[in-house]
Amino acid sequence: MSTFSADQLAQLEQQAIELPSWAFGNSGTRFKVFATPGTPRDPYEKIADAAQVQKFTALAPTVALHIPWDKVDSYDDLRAHAEGLGVQLGTINSNTFQDDDYKFGALTHEDAAVRRKAIDHHLECIDIMHATGSRDLKIWLAEGSNYPGQADLRGRQDRLQESLQEIYARLGDEQRLVLEYKFFEPAFYHTDVPDWGTSYAQVAALGDKAMVCLDTGHHAPGTNIEFIVMQLLRLGKLGSFDFNSRFYADDDLIVGAADPFQLFRILYEVIRGGGLNNPDVAFMLDQCHNVEDKVPGQIRSVLNVQEMTARALVVDGEALSSAQRSGDVLEANRIFMDAFYTDVRPALAEWRESRGLPADPMAAFAASGYLQQIAADRVGGVQAGWGA
Amino acid sequence: MSTFSADQLAQLEQQAIELPSWAFGNSGTRFKVFATPGTPRDPYEKIADAAQVQKFTALAPTVALHIPWDKVDSYDDLRAHAEGLGVQLGTINSNTFQDDDYKFGALTHEDAAVRRKAIDHHLECIDIMHATGSRDLKIWLAEGSNYPGQADLRGRQDRLQESLQEIYARLGDEQRLVLEYKFFEPAFYHTDVPDWGTSYAQVAALGDKAMVCLDTGHHAPGTNIEFIVMQLLRLGKLGSFDFNSRFYADDDLIVGAADPFQLFRILYEVIRGGGLNNPDVAFMLDQCHNVEDKVPGQIRSVLNVQEMTARALVVDGEALSSAQRSGDVLEANRIFMDAFYTDVRPALAEWRESRGLPADPMAAFAASGYLQQIAADRVGGVQAGWGA
Amino acid sequence: MSTFSADQLAQLEQQAIELPSWAFGNSGTRFKVFATPGTPRDPYEKIADAAQVQKFTALAPTVALHIPWDKVDSYDDLRAHAEGLGVQLGTINSNTFQDDDYKFGALTHEDAAVRRKAIDHHLECIDIMHATGSRDLKIWLAEGSNYPGQADLRGRQDRLQESLQEIYARLGDEQRLVLEYKFFEPAFYHTDVPDWGTSYAQVAALGDKAMVCLDTGHHAPGTNIEFIVMQLLRLGKLGSFDFNSRFYADDDLIVGAADPFQLFRILYEVIRGGGLNNPDVAFMLDQCHNVEDKVPGQIRSVLNVQEMTARALVVDGEALSSAQRSGDVLEANRIFMDAFYTDVRPALAEWRESRGLPADPMAAFAASGYLQQIAADRVGGVQAGWGA
Amino acid sequence: MSTFSADQLAQLEQQAIELPSWAFGNSGTRFKVFATPGTPRDPYEKIADAAQVQKFTALAPTVALHIPWDKVDSYDDLRAHAEGLGVQLGTINSNTFQDDDYKFGALTHEDAAVRRKAIDHHLECIDIMHATGSRDLKIWLAEGSNYPGQADLRGRQDRLQESLQEIYARLGDEQRLVLEYKFFEPAFYHTDVPDWGTSYAQVAALGDKAMVCLDTGHHAPGTNIEFIVMQLLRLGKLGSFDFNSRFYADDDLIVGAADPFQLFRILYEVIRGGGLNNPDVAFMLDQCHNVEDKVPGQIRSVLNVQEMTARALVVDGEALSSAQRSGDVLEANRIFMDAFYTDVRPALAEWRESRGLPADPMAAFAASGYLQQIAADRVGGVQAGWGA
Repeated sequence: MSTFSADQLAQLEQQAIELPSWAFGNSGTRFKVFATPGTPRDPYEKIADAAQVQKFTALAPTVALHIPWDKVDSYDDLRAHAEGLGVQLGTINSNTFQDDDYKFGALTHEDAAVRRKAIDHHLECIDIMHATGSRDLKIWLAEGSNYPGQADLRGRQDRLQESLQEIYARLGDEQRLVLEYKFFEPAFYHTDVPDWGTSYAQVAALGDKAMVCLDTGHHAPGTNIEFIVMQLLRLGKLGSFDFNSRFYADDDLIVGAADPFQLFRILYEVIRGGGLNNPDVAFMLDQCHNVEDKVPGQIRSVLNVQEMTARALVVDGEALSSAQRSGDVLEANRIFMDAFYTDVRPALAEWRESRGLPADPMAAFAASGYLQQIAADRVGGVQAGWGA
Repeated sequence: MSTFSADQLAQLEQQAIELPSWAFGNSGTRFKVFATPGTPRDPYEKIADAAQVQKFTALAPTVALHIPWDKVDSYDDLRAHAEGLGVQLGTINSNTFQDDDYKFGALTHEDAAVRRKAIDHHLECIDIMHATGSRDLKIWLAEGSNYPGQADLRGRQDRLQESLQEIYARLGDEQRLVLEYKFFEPAFYHTDVPDWGTSYAQVAALGDKAMVCLDTGHHAPGTNIEFIVMQLLRLGKLGSFDFNSRFYADDDLIVGAADPFQLFRILYEVIRGGGLNNPDVAFMLDQCHNVEDKVPGQIRSVLNVQEMTARALVVDGEALSSAQRSGDVLEANRIFMDAFYTDVRPALAEWRESRGLPADPMAAFAASGYLQQIAADRVGGVQAGWGA
Repeated sequence: MSTFSADQLAQLEQQAIELPSWAFGNSGTRFKVFATPGTPRDPYEKIADAAQVQKFTALAPTVALHIPWDKVDSYDDLRAHAEGLGVQLGTINSNTFQDDDYKFGALTHEDAAVRRKAIDHHLECIDIMHATGSRDLKIWLAEGSNYPGQADLRGRQDRLQESLQEIYARLGDEQRLVLEYKFFEPAFYHTDVPDWGTSYAQVAALGDKAMVCLDTGHHAPGTNIEFIVMQLLRLGKLGSFDFNSRFYADDDLIVGAADPFQLFRILYEVIRGGGLNNPDVAFMLDQCHNVEDKVPGQIRSVLNVQEMTARALVVDGEALSSAQRSGDVLEANRIFMDAFYTDVRPALAEWRESRGLPADPMAAFAASGYLQQIAADRVGGVQAGWGA
Repeated sequence: MSTFSADQLAQLEQQAIELPSWAFGNSGTRFKVFATPGTPRDPYEKIADAAQVQKFTALAPTVALHIPWDKVDSYDDLRAHAEGLGVQLGTINSNTFQDDDYKFGALTHEDAAVRRKAIDHHLECIDIMHATGSRDLKIWLAEGSNYPGQADLRGRQDRLQESLQEIYARLGDEQRLVLEYKFFEPAFYHTDVPDWGTSYAQVAALGDKAMVCLDTGHHAPGTNIEFIVMQLLRLGKLGSFDFNSRFYADDDLIVGAADPFQLFRILYEVIRGGGLNNPDVAFMLDQCHNVEDKVPGQIRSVLNVQEMTARALVVDGEALSSAQRSGDVLEANRIFMDAFYTDVRPALAEWRESRGLPADPMAAFAASGYLQQIAADRVGGVQAGWGA
């Protein structure tokens, strides 16, 4: 196991990637949501599926919830259910995009009554956070407009800040608000939090407990995402990651699937900036498994992050720094690429086994018969999905 | 009315833009479909709405149908209904994206049984075309894959050609097949007909009755669409337009809303290449009115096309040609922009009135009370929408 | 002249757009710089050309200089020359991209000696600003890297801040530093100030006299630029504009040429946010006239800004606000587009004449014979150009 | 050496990647061309540098020439020089972008005299091909326009075909014409051959000896390049590759540097479509080493292609095909990625040594002292570069 040093193994052992409960429900495009047998019908079943990922990888100890999709009568009960399966409840995600009242905005709406409703929803989420023991409230705003002239961009920005202040004021001492930005969709002309700069300006005006959430799929074509990672770490405002990958828009593909080298560069900057296993920076997935199986899709995803973190850890930092200082472009690039091209998989498999985990989590999960079991068991009821 | 010559008015008078029946049903994003009172509940109501657009503009004499969304027991009856309202049935659009069997393809599927089903669907569409009196079968394929390695790109392309040949063979003498291309979505890694080159190569291999359909929203960022218009007209393969506009992806906004100057350039090349009022080139809308009212959204759209066609018609072709020949960049651009900046709206309003049409179709429609009427009448039943 | 109110005319009368001296020199692409007869051979001739733009439009009272391209023995003499021609010297632009020492950076370089040289260059620029009476020091950094691993992104960002602090400390009380951002080019992997967020974070850390410069051609494809205008005005950090337009990358075309509607939207947000004729916000051109004549290219450019400002001024703000509040998407868009489609040119021509200016500045300049005169006069010597 | 089968090694042994003579000269951006000691001063020195790449890798047996940059008095002499150094002269590249006459076009120009000059240049290139023994004439056209209205798109397309026909008619029986397309630059509004569809339509109208050249950096953002590779191979029209990589525009970086996984996918489709070691498909580099050393930059590039070809060769085709047929998305993707993540470098190093080549060509070249030698020898004279 000479591929990794003891320190590197310690880093890998601490790594934790939160899973989104909604990744286990059906998802799709505006054209079609394909159905899958065994899809969870309630939050309990979603957590059961998530626990499988943790069982086979030890990489995913927590599960994020989406409110109202994951509302239950007793969060104590849900929490006990999760803990019984070996996982914890994590980030609470609010939802202001699936109510007809929010057609023209929520926290930014012209109408104070709609803003009130949206703010109250977030206050309810904070109440739930106390019940679930969650630290982070994640806010992704679907707000924006489709046509030039439709909306007053400036007024909306001011109202957004006011609404966020009211939500922020309710946070407990140990709680945080993370504000996600997104380039476009579902709005097609303007989006109220379209870029990291806007998210940063908004959270900086709130205070220390407000941070930026970076979703790797939410940028303009060609954006150097690792640069933003570096900058937000430098500014002390990188609160969390939503991992996924994309070729075109917000495709929500498996992290690392579209551009593995980009994921490597991102994780390198995470390490370079002190963001790995730093409690300030939460890592989670936010993906849609439209055409692939969902539980193994999540297993594949956390393994992709683990493998790429391992590659980023083996960059020879001293040699790289020396080549950079001397302006040796080809040598610096060679050192960087050498780590990327290193096949860390055999060493990781061996290390997993040494910890009592399957060497090949994908194969072990497939052999477990879990998918067949849930397909047989989960008959009747309504499958969970976006909008369910 | 000195803005337009008699010849230009004759061109404008002939202009016809087909409406899609589905524009009148609810549509949305993967996140939410907002509901609208008065939304049609069946094909008859969609056609009634479309007829309003024709009534107030005289620009939209035909309505395209989508199969199976618009399947009815008697197409003779539907046709009579349409003609009673002053419109004709137009292009038939097939649908191979809303059946679980098509998760991994339809005309390109690895499994011959799925291909058979998809081909048969198109043969049924041709049968319906005979019943409706339609000339064009429009094929947009949602087929593709989400992950590298998932699909055999080459094999799919070959199977696509085979499937299309079987469909093509069934066309009547006066019928045509138009093949639409799209950059991405719903597939996020590869799309089987992603660009005009692929559509062109596929239809060229079929024969004279197969043409390319250009949807203005289906290109990579930065693509010079009017160049493709020019090229397809030059190659004799521009079969039809799907008009809409976009800022980002396939936003399906009102045509001309996002970049009016681009629409001007496109219509200029249509005229330059002999595509205006040329029976070989069909013009239709393909939009989603997610947040705006649907009937006036369609009225606004056909007016946008009309107004921009009028601007493109007043380009001083001789002066432009002379400036181009002499390499006078600023003068050539000035002549081109002069037409774009000409406010043709007053002259068009006057001309509309001279033909017994309302000077301001949007205001006249709003004053008609139609939206209020259908909101009151269309109660009960299921609103039509994508996937309905 | 009923198109404009007295207040609108007052706004238009105050409008001033600074010209860049380098727009009058030859420019081109990496493939070829085409030569033009009459191209200036020194800063005096560039200013003479710029003065022509002011003479025919009264829109361009100041000229920005580029150091070292515009270094002269006596800035007093250059200033007198300018004033004698009816223009003032304006913004000073530094240059850290044309010296072999800056191959791997300037203000961010690993080597303290190179940083020293780059900082000293900026201190010299500030000295020149005192001589020329300039208020603004504009810094565009060409710094970045071409290959992943080549550079330490984080270290460079920190060094940038240190270098800027030293420059900032030298500013006089009435002087400002504006920091430009650019998506990419000439660096092709990372750029040290790639987006408005980075520029904002850097200048916010400096102090009140540091502002962001927004170049309209320096964004990722699809970026909503007017949103950034709104946000920077809201944050009080929009220091200046570099106007130009682009279809693809940083094409540096004539402002308004590629997407006139985008320019309209930008100017609307300038007005909405109080940025028009606000001393905090400087407007200038930054374009390359690669294939068109340079002096008329600049005249066309300032006219484009003027015409589009006039269109943005005639937006019916009250009606728009009312439509926005009531969620009437189509009406709000109609009001917005109505202003854009209004042909303000006749009223502007009439107004120009009323002020003793030519109704058609392009035609008047062409008739003046100036281009023929300079082609005849400026023989011998070396034409100025990028890198000259 | 169990990583590769005998058949795979045979494929790797046949692999040949042509080098461009201009890669050894200075290159840069419109902002600056940085100078490098030892840069060649004439075609003979460029070929000497190219021969070093072949010497250390056995991957680059031929050198492409650019006319007029590489014009010499005696091509026999140049050929003998090359052969003495162990390389052959290869593709001839024409140049119609560095003459003032071509400001508004060459093969497409409105003026017949300019077209004549451009056609004659290509006829001269064919004469040179006979002297050098070259098979391919590669045509990249910088032609286009910067402003809407500036040019008559349709007329230019027709003139392009006429000009190409005259050039095509002069080709010898064994000679070919390959037509390169490019999305944009140096023209910024329209480019006359902007996409593969246009190149395909143009060469298809010429005949069997005309083919498409695919430059990997010449596409719109997000374009699926391997799809185009597949399609052109399917249509029998993929004549040659220009390898390089890009993050943004036509950055001309080292092939594989920006997105190694994309290079893998491209090479997989080359193999899948029978394009590897197929005489119809020529492979060459077309890069600019703006900031890195040029000879090792080329060595790195051919090694990148070799290593990625090796990865693409080890895809388990049967297993992949089976997973694709059964719709097992995750398994198909796993098989594909497994090859990509395989570290082929040790086996390639061993194999190189077995053939008498250095295991590490980069290190061996660095140790050779060649760069130091040419820096010392090549003093005086003018360094070659774009525009030289």
